Amino acid sequence: MSGWLRIIGLGPGDTALRTPEADAALAAATDLVGYGPYVARVAARPEQRRHETDNRQELDRARHALAMAQSGARVAVVSSGDAGVFAMASAVFEAVEHGPPEWRALDIAVLPGISAMFAAAARLGAPLGHDFCALSLSDNLKPWPLVERRLTAAAGAGFVIALYNPVSRARPWQLGRAFELLRGLLPGETPVAFATAVSRPEERIELRPLADADPALADMRTLVLIGSAATRGIAREGARPWLYTPRSASSP
Amino acid sequence: MSGWLRIIGLGPGDTALRTPEADAALAAATDLVGYGPYVARVAARPEQRRHETDNRQELDRARHALAMAQSGARVAVVSSGDAGVFAMASAVFEAVEHGPPEWRALDIAVLPGISAMFAAAARLGAPLGHDFCALSLSDNLKPWPLVERRLTAAAGAGFVIALYNPVSRARPWQLGRAFELLRGLLPGETPVAFATAVSRPEERIELRPLADADPALADMRTLVLIGSAATRGIAREGARPWLYTPRSASSP
Repeated sequence: MSGWLRIIGLGPGDTALRTPEADAALAAATDLVGYGPYVARVAARPEQRRHETDNRQELDRARHALAMAQSGARVAVVSSGDAGVFAMASAVFEAVEHGPPEWRALDIAVLPGISAMFAAAARLGAPLGHDFCALSLSDNLKPWPLVERRLTAAAGAGFVIALYNPVSRARPWQLGRAFELLRGLLPGETPVAFATAVSRPEERIELRPLADADPALADMRTLVLIGSAATRGIAREGARPWLYTPRSASSP
Repeated sequence: MSGWLRIIGLGPGDTALRTPEADAALAAATDLVGYGPYVARVAARPEQRRHETDNRQELDRARHALAMAQSGARVAVVSSGDAGVFAMASAVFEAVEHGPPEWRALDIAVLPGISAMFAAAARLGAPLGHDFCALSLSDNLKPWPLVERRLTAAAGAGFVIALYNPVSRARPWQLGRAFELLRGLLPGETPVAFATAVSRPEERIELRPLADADPALADMRTLVLIGSAATRGIAREGARPWLYTPRSASSP
């Protein structure tokens, strides 16, 4: 039997946002590998082994998955959202690069998913309708001054900013520091959206002007979206305003 | 009968990459609206009206869709990829903001799709595994100096760059100019990927170092992806190298 590895984006949560391609690979896999809460989103199948691991063990998890595929298993590594965005795909290729040469010959494919960023944007309106960037606020794997430098560059050049990993128990102050920095660069009325667990039962969306953006509105499941000077709100009666960034832009 | 409007991302092409949520809305719609080649991707249904328009008429198309929804139709506006990314969602909300007040009370929702950027990244490996930005190279709706300013900011701060709308008949020189600019800011060996029509029969992927990146490799269906200094290639025998950007970064 010839093994393979599929790195699968499960989408933001609702199975109606999971692609048929992902479903087919999940059904064909002998082994399911991933962070516990993500593996739990996949319906259990008899005879499919489930390997649930802790959040911080991406590289070990990747090596384990590769070793299983090498020995003939059909392995599905699952991530929330899109597996290529601050998720497992990069860890798998890092393991391939530094692993035994045979891993380079394995049948590996990445199956894209609906990212947290686009699921959040869809709920809000069209805030990512023009130039934007995605930035992880985690300083576990990069120095904090680099985060600040990227925030400064992005805000200064007029990109809408999507922040991944805004906060965790081990990183409580970073989001507040980011807001502080951005208040010096963008108007106080710049819209900030906190989109938590989009498409899951506990979904919650909060909008604030940057001047009043409160880091306590974010947790580990939150995507924080910061508008550019061009991003606009459309007031609606009895509903949250639509947020969108026009397709046209003048020099900021 | 009460109308609605759904702004739907069809994904990059292959229906295995279209979400069940999108399929359900397409099946329930009375009217289908979009650029001809995108509407053509949706299987025809008897009794569903198809309104195919030209590429450049986003705002007219949006107004037409809103007016139909207002008069009771169930309208699906379709885009390729994700409808929120350089696509129809922003045009619809622009039309809502400047249209009759009743349009703000309409039942509107955006249904996210697999974006061209993530479909391309999945084929390549994990080039968007760390901080990245997405930028439209079209200067139809923004001044070219602003494009250059954003490219400079993004490359200087170490973002991987995804270029949408790299070239068209009316915009033949912009991509070459962008490469020229980036050659002054990034190492010549920085990987550049040209991902055309990913998941469609005519799919084509080309990799070049920035020093040799040839704008002629791109057409209207191409997503151009430019690595950061951290992006790496993994050589494979008899296959295109994997491209990935590690999760960890040091200050550039």
